[in-house]
Amino acid sequence: MDYWHACASGLRLGQPVLLNMTQAPIPALSHLQHLGGAFTYLEEIHQVLNALTLFEGFSASDHATLCEYMECYAAPSRTPIVTEGTEGDFVVIILTGGVNVIKTDAHAAPKVVAHVGPGGFLGEMSLVDGQQRFASCIATQPTDLAVLTRDDLTGILDDHPQLGNKILLLLLQLVTKRLRDSTTRMLPTIGAQWV
Amino acid sequence: MDYWHACASGLRLGQPVLLNMTQAPIPALSHLQHLGGAFTYLEEIHQVLNALTLFEGFSASDHATLCEYMECYAAPSRTPIVTEGTEGDFVVIILTGGVNVIKTDAHAAPKVVAHVGPGGFLGEMSLVDGQQRFASCIATQPTDLAVLTRDDLTGILDDHPQLGNKILLLLLQLVTKRLRDSTTRMLPTIGAQWV
Repeated sequence: MDYWHACASGLRLGQPVLLNMTQAPIPALSHLQHLGGAFTYLEEIHQVLNALTLFEGFSASDHATLCEYMECYAAPSRTPIVTEGTEGDFVVIILTGGVNVIKTDAHAAPKVVAHVGPGGFLGEMSLVDGQQRFASCIATQPTDLAVLTRDDLTGILDDHPQLGNKILLLLLQLVTKRLRDSTTRMLPTIGAQWV
Repeated sequence: MDYWHACASGLRLGQPVLLNMTQAPIPALSHLQHLGGAFTYLEEIHQVLNALTLFEGFSASDHATLCEYMECYAAPSRTPIVTEGTEGDFVVIILTGGVNVIKTDAHAAPKVVAHVGPGGFLGEMSLVDGQQRFASCIATQPTDLAVLTRDDLTGILDDHPQLGNKILLLLLQLVTKRLRDSTTRMLPTIGAQWV
């Protein structure tokens, strides 16, 4: 079953996922060092995820299954990981290091709008809706990351629906937190133009 | 398994769900006419959901299962359905009629920020994070609605994990669309204070 098509038309169909095998690097990340399948880094990833509230209910077995679907990359300092305005359908989990999130403002000037460190997520909006990246993310130091594509997530939903529910709930809570934060920031601008 | 606790601590635990039985009215909706379990209105709900892109991949059987977990209410014109600042952990699907979404602005004045008609969703942020309602929703005409609580959703995740995947994806796409819309609206205000 194609779950993405189940809920929104026009999205790319999932491709078969090769478990426990290193996949080809994602083209949008071909400028980074491809470290291979995340399963090789299970112990390190387990430690990072264990420290995160969002992952509280994930068992060691869940982490292991998730790692079978993710790939890892290393980004040198000052390297872009995602670029505003480009296509992309993957989410990034920062494992070590950190990135600046940079958004072009109304005067076409780049503004640093956030700094994200280990355990932070990048790019979940484009994973969900397949639209362009809203901001750029640039490594501020040597940074290792795990990547989950939409095809990987489709594979998890097909093969492990209960783990799929946990991951979707995690993403839902992450996006809802960002929505609540952004709507709270918007309060001073609320007016009749919203109707 | 408690999926909500799986992904975020401090949330209410699910209660057993009584299938195919009319549940007690939700206290926050006790001022509305309680129409009973949604299964009674399966045909009407099937027609509404069938017209929605978000529900594209849901089968008639999925609709029937979902209806076993929802309750229906009727709101007379000018009746509040959710109230800004109050607690609530349910999402509303408008079946007939319509509501105004009203938010208090920075000067404590109520502003109509949206109008939502049949097929529209209300209250998904509080369903996910259990926090206060961000805005009020008031019926502008006689309005029938279906309600899904967090306990209902927990029951679906436990008993029908693949249907749970579809519902969570639907909510994820809904919240992501709202986030992309709100961040696009915020662009003129982006500045160094975001760091």
